Amino acid sequence: MELTKLLRPRSIAVIGATDKPGFGLSTCSNLLKTKIKEHVYFVHPKREEVLGKECYKSIGEIPEKIDMCVLIVNKKVVPSALEEAAEYGCKAAVVYASGYGETGDKESEGQLRELCRKLDMAVMGVNCAGFINNLDEIFAFGMLVPGEARKGNVAIISQSGKICLNMMQITYMNFSYLISSGNSTCIRIEDYLEFLIKDEDTKVIGLYMEGIKDPVKFKEVLKQAALARKPVVILKVGKTSKGSALAASHTGSLAGSDKAFDAIVKKFGVIRVDDIEELVQMCHMLSVLPMIPENTGLSAMCLSGGETGVCADTGTLLGLEYPEFAPETMEKLRELLPDYATPANPLDMSATLAHDGEKYAAVIQAIMEDPSIGMVLCGQTILPEHGPKDVIQPMSDGMVIAAGKKKKPVAVMSFFNSSRDKMVREKLEAAGVPILPATGCGFKLLKYLMDFVKYKPEEHILDLAILENQKKEKVRTALSEHDSKCELAAAGVPVPPEAIVSSKEELRDFAPGISYPAVAKIASPDILHKSDVGGVKLNLQDAGELETAYQEIMESVKEKCPDARIDGVLVQSMLPQGVEMIIGVNADPQFGPMILCGLGGVFVEVFKDVSLYPAPLNEQEARSMIESLKGYKLLNGYRGSKKCDVDALAKFIVKISEYAVAQKESLKELDINPLFVYPEGEGVALADALVIKEQ
Amino acid sequence: MELTKLLRPRSIAVIGATDKPGFGLSTCSNLLKTKIKEHVYFVHPKREEVLGKECYKSIGEIPEKIDMCVLIVNKKVVPSALEEAAEYGCKAAVVYASGYGETGDKESEGQLRELCRKLDMAVMGVNCAGFINNLDEIFAFGMLVPGEARKGNVAIISQSGKICLNMMQITYMNFSYLISSGNSTCIRIEDYLEFLIKDEDTKVIGLYMEGIKDPVKFKEVLKQAALARKPVVILKVGKTSKGSALAASHTGSLAGSDKAFDAIVKKFGVIRVDDIEELVQMCHMLSVLPMIPENTGLSAMCLSGGETGVCADTGTLLGLEYPEFAPETMEKLRELLPDYATPANPLDMSATLAHDGEKYAAVIQAIMEDPSIGMVLCGQTILPEHGPKDVIQPMSDGMVIAAGKKKKPVAVMSFFNSSRDKMVREKLEAAGVPILPATGCGFKLLKYLMDFVKYKPEEHILDLAILENQKKEKVRTALSEHDSKCELAAAGVPVPPEAIVSSKEELRDFAPGISYPAVAKIASPDILHKSDVGGVKLNLQDAGELETAYQEIMESVKEKCPDARIDGVLVQSMLPQGVEMIIGVNADPQFGPMILCGLGGVFVEVFKDVSLYPAPLNEQEARSMIESLKGYKLLNGYRGSKKCDVDALAKFIVKISEYAVAQKESLKELDINPLFVYPEGEGVALADALVIKEQ
Repeated sequence: MELTKLLRPRSIAVIGATDKPGFGLSTCSNLLKTKIKEHVYFVHPKREEVLGKECYKSIGEIPEKIDMCVLIVNKKVVPSALEEAAEYGCKAAVVYASGYGETGDKESEGQLRELCRKLDMAVMGVNCAGFINNLDEIFAFGMLVPGEARKGNVAIISQSGKICLNMMQITYMNFSYLISSGNSTCIRIEDYLEFLIKDEDTKVIGLYMEGIKDPVKFKEVLKQAALARKPVVILKVGKTSKGSALAASHTGSLAGSDKAFDAIVKKFGVIRVDDIEELVQMCHMLSVLPMIPENTGLSAMCLSGGETGVCADTGTLLGLEYPEFAPETMEKLRELLPDYATPANPLDMSATLAHDGEKYAAVIQAIMEDPSIGMVLCGQTILPEHGPKDVIQPMSDGMVIAAGKKKKPVAVMSFFNSSRDKMVREKLEAAGVPILPATGCGFKLLKYLMDFVKYKPEEHILDLAILENQKKEKVRTALSEHDSKCELAAAGVPVPPEAIVSSKEELRDFAPGISYPAVAKIASPDILHKSDVGGVKLNLQDAGELETAYQEIMESVKEKCPDARIDGVLVQSMLPQGVEMIIGVNADPQFGPMILCGLGGVFVEVFKDVSLYPAPLNEQEARSMIESLKGYKLLNGYRGSKKCDVDALAKFIVKISEYAVAQKESLKELDINPLFVYPEGEGVALADALVIKEQ
Repeated sequence: MELTKLLRPRSIAVIGATDKPGFGLSTCSNLLKTKIKEHVYFVHPKREEVLGKECYKSIGEIPEKIDMCVLIVNKKVVPSALEEAAEYGCKAAVVYASGYGETGDKESEGQLRELCRKLDMAVMGVNCAGFINNLDEIFAFGMLVPGEARKGNVAIISQSGKICLNMMQITYMNFSYLISSGNSTCIRIEDYLEFLIKDEDTKVIGLYMEGIKDPVKFKEVLKQAALARKPVVILKVGKTSKGSALAASHTGSLAGSDKAFDAIVKKFGVIRVDDIEELVQMCHMLSVLPMIPENTGLSAMCLSGGETGVCADTGTLLGLEYPEFAPETMEKLRELLPDYATPANPLDMSATLAHDGEKYAAVIQAIMEDPSIGMVLCGQTILPEHGPKDVIQPMSDGMVIAAGKKKKPVAVMSFFNSSRDKMVREKLEAAGVPILPATGCGFKLLKYLMDFVKYKPEEHILDLAILENQKKEKVRTALSEHDSKCELAAAGVPVPPEAIVSSKEELRDFAPGISYPAVAKIASPDILHKSDVGGVKLNLQDAGELETAYQEIMESVKEKCPDARIDGVLVQSMLPQGVEMIIGVNADPQFGPMILCGLGGVFVEVFKDVSLYPAPLNEQEARSMIESLKGYKLLNGYRGSKKCDVDALAKFIVKISEYAVAQKESLKELDINPLFVYPEGEGVALADALVIKEQ
């Protein structure tokens, strides 16, 4: 969808312009402050002027062609107003009106969507608060905004207007765009994302969402962002059942399974945050930093042992890495630091250095030159006001000097939140040094950053196997174990050979194809307790024993269950015991097949220790799934046992993914439990499988 | 130790008073602002006056008896200055001087400690920054403080002077005392804690520490705090090896095992926080709230679905409970809320109510009256400045009205951090409504609060089995399995009977005492592979079979290993299989025996799923240990299996605790692996044990 006329209009009409307090007055006041105010026109059938500006009776009377109109009109009037605007060539609109899907009236919302499509208009809303474009100084927003455009490189898209307004209230945050998407009736979050990924003035995109409506478009734009390495920071509610119930009642979106969403975030390298403060601060940090760290090694340098200890604990517990300094770095630090300081990472550099900006800069630079360090944190709380003699002055001078070398990113780690001295903030941020929030949140942001640093788009298949047809009437069918295996085998998944034979001839044809010892079991839908009727023979050593077993089973069963339907005898190899894994597929209604893997037994059932990842996936992605299991140790040579064949396991998972993608329109669930994993070089063997289809 | 003369002196001498910038000048300036400034005397041998105030040549010349002196003198002069002060009856001192244990000079520090003891003086420091007592307006602090005493009910003790200073810089925090304890050479953190627990003006104690020096005193004061229900909030660094290495280099304290510290915190109901921001904010919340919630049920009410979703997700993921509202509450809410709002907890109350303070108060009150709700959160971000027409005005009016009923605590949940409107903050906090930090930190604080609400001191043995003698030369001895079991049995721990018999007569005496089937094994320090020499007989059904087995084992071993030393034959019951647990004891050098329990196998080895708790413990504490295991499900009727005898398991753990306490001076480690736990009513059975002594 083309959004330029909407977000970068050269002429704007306000339909229903008014000076009555509310969205109308605020919009009119805001638009009078925009750069193109000569091309802003007010329209109202009954008014001569609003806020001292002439009012036109209708859009048709305006002497200029209008790119975009803002509708300050009642829900009932929206369709005719859009039609009229379209008639005069207007291609975009903002609609504030509410009372659609969010309060239950899905019908009106559907009709409106259809109308926009018909008119070929890009419509923001309904139930939205408009947008701010600071680049062109356009404030088409329903709540009063400060006149001055704080131009920046962060773009925000928010389903909630309240959160959008909150963002604007943070005085040190500078934006390119702030978009309140509302119900996304016509233009969806996915469309705004696409626009912003391409927008060269936008460096970071922050997104508050409750759900998405067009998963195909969503994956396309996430792929563009991943390839462009443009960070997308998402706050999505609905992690818990309480949260997703709210999301569902608040918007019309299908929340989708939150775990599936989490897996998709990993595939596309999106940064998913947990609350509004993290969203704000993550966008801000990425906005200020002049570059992303080259590697994930972190260094922290503080003025006191207490603060250094807090950095060490908080960072390490979150999984951040403080690499040991190289010998050359240690040497340099020993020269720079007072005698009683012990060079180490994190570094307690002692308070004396805080008074000497040059020396402080030299310490930062010495650390920057260490090849294992990707980023330097300077520990110091910036207070609301700092006098000219405060230590923060030489310290921040030092940071500015060091950051000026543009070698590696530098940030300030603060120990408690407060408002920050404006002068110090501006000086640091101009040099590319962001001030992070207090440690709990601050280190979490750094973990997000380092995960983003680790992410390599080329290691992932940037695609999803989204269903083409959403089925209305669903019929579920569970295949038998044998049929499930046959289906998998036919799809190229390695399945140990097995067959149901119903004659000695068939048995003789099949017997050479399996490895011994073998098992034979009666195959009959009418016999549940196979052993009780002599229907099972284990540990058969060769084709001869197998044939005898076949004979005995058939005779025993005929005698004991004369009326049972007999499909034949199931013949298969007896698999040697290995490490038991569970491999599964679950079809997510929005995102298609999700592949699951976990170790069997208590690992899955008590600890829920499973990895979930969207199909299609490659061997590297499969390997990451396996390695992310807490129980991975058991596969990697646990207590002196042999290492397992993780290569074969990863390849097997890829085969399952291929099968799931090929069958996506009908496969509802697959459960392989167990898959035996053998020592390195000895492969894996599927022991049992259950396929559930839905058509 | 008596701290009144130190912390609440009626006369003060500054020894080494000076107007040279630094600790000296700051202290003199600060003390001139104190309430008792007529009783503040400056002493300097070479000065006539400092800051316009007369200087005495020595403490002896001062016309009044001095309660406390502040030493602004070099390390070398400290001992003679203290001696002189003591001579004139001074009983307390603050010593700023550094260069002691923290830089390696433990000898001087030891000598100084001895001197203080001899002089019977209460000395704060060394290497400290002094203290602030806002109640009496005494500012004996080495860094410049604002003249006005912000009297409050929070007391802070901090080993780090920097952190102490930071606390003062938070303008909305009001303190009773702020104590920078430094090296705790003479007065220890434990002593200050005792003083503050007894201090009626102090409601909350915040503590930044790296370690403790006197565990006996520490447990005594924590017991006093627990019984008084006075909250103690502790930030202790050293959770990770990086952090504890720093703590060890920064102070002389023995950091102790962090996990043991965590367990002690649970026993005494201490609130342990993770960083400085949490320490500040937790103290602040407890300071402002007029009461602790009666129960742990939480309610949140926000103006938008987005914010409600964030509250639902963040709270639930941290383990907080949003109970469903009672039908009467739902009824009241339906009447109060607009038609389109759906009453639920957390509550999206829609923005319209924000304009009506009375109605907003009515909603809070309706929720307060719900018996399952312990506390009400009002979601709204307070900004730096709010105009008189802002919705926060009616909203905060509503909160003030509702909080005024003093029924249940009310707090504001903010969605991002910023400075907060001073007027709004003061109005709310005067009414007992704290403004919490943004959700990530804010909900963590609520989790700490609810854990404090759940804690009941009467359910715990408020004691520790701290070692009386720290051994210097340590010799370790591991007992054999049989000896380990005998020692446990002798201490009253239930151990299935077993014996080493070396004659048929001994066997006949013992045989009736065990249950069958039984096992017989050769007992010899020289035979490792017992089965290979016919030394093991399993599944013996009665005394007769046992005797035959004895005979055969003795004969076979004599034939095959004629030179082996033979202790006899070990005879024991064959235990039926049960759920395998590991029960252990580990002697913590500071806190004495710590009891450990966990499920066997991968639970302990891969997932580290163990509970640790200090001895002595009672059955309730043992049960909490068991229930806190992730694998507890396996004991509680997992997948249709029978529930395990958790009662017997808890009783067994109590017996182990009793044994560990009785043997604390010599027991280093105990490992019971496995203990079989049987279905309800069928008890537990110890299968193997290893005792390691250290003497």
